[in-house]
Amino acid sequence: MIEIERRFLVATLPDELPVPVPIAQAYITTVPVSLRVRRMGDRRILTIKSGRGLERTEIERDLSDGEFEALWNLGAELRIEKRRHQVQLDTGDVAELDLFDGDLSGRRIVEVEFASTDEALAFDPPAWFGREVTDDPRYTNSSLARHGWPDA
Amino acid sequence: MIEIERRFLVATLPDELPVPVPIAQAYITTVPVSLRVRRMGDRRILTIKSGRGLERTEIERDLSDGEFEALWNLGAELRIEKRRHQVQLDTGDVAELDLFDGDLSGRRIVEVEFASTDEALAFDPPAWFGREVTDDPRYTNSSLARHGWPDA
Repeated sequence: MIEIERRFLVATLPDELPVPVPIAQAYITTVPVSLRVRRMGDRRILTIKSGRGLERTEIERDLSDGEFEALWNLGAELRIEKRRHQVQLDTGDVAELDLFDGDLSGRRIVEVEFASTDEALAFDPPAWFGREVTDDPRYTNSSLARHGWPDA
Repeated sequence: MIEIERRFLVATLPDELPVPVPIAQAYITTVPVSLRVRRMGDRRILTIKSGRGLERTEIERDLSDGEFEALWNLGAELRIEKRRHQVQLDTGDVAELDLFDGDLSGRRIVEVEFASTDEALAFDPPAWFGREVTDDPRYTNSSLARHGWPDA
């Protein structure tokens, strides 16, 4: 229920990328929690996230197609489309590299999730990772959906 | 997923009431959907409702104790406590009679849920029901939590 995750910009893309999974998601609201519906492959998922930074509270449940549609239509103004590449790192961790489409086309973010804060803090990012933005709330997907890509 | 429900004030209480179930609920947000967590007996429930009037969209999931606590604390300003009496009606329907506590102490509302709109419209309320408030959004629990009991 606690999601421990570090988030980075992407300096350079790895030469070979695994086949991505297309993701479409919409935010019903972003305060005081983000309430998100996501379509990822065959799955339809409801996610509630609260808090900011390294450790966030996350509650996730599968949705039926009908439930997804009902909520999806409520998030019309706050949608994100992206392709997610699951990249195996030399550290043994798995990076989720998101290449955005739509309004955020060309933008990219990479995230790594950890089992503990200790593991997260010990993580040594590979050279292709860019600036870390874990503590910059402008780079959460909900903020990108609402405000677009930050200016600096 | 569609909840079909009529809601009434209570003119007079029935003489004998079944043992109530205590309910405590908190709203994390009320627009554009209501996002509610409820403790009812041993259950911890997440509910998302949208729309207004007779037919509303409702999505419900059980929560773990930890998930409930995390969300409950986010709804500190919008809480409702009540006792719910499940009253068997002569029509075969079951009325949910809610007697409010806390800030709404002494207030009461009765709701009946139906399988179809036809059944809902055919329902003949018993004499102890008061004015119907199905189409008055001030009497939803989320509105009562936010604005208190309406003046008129």
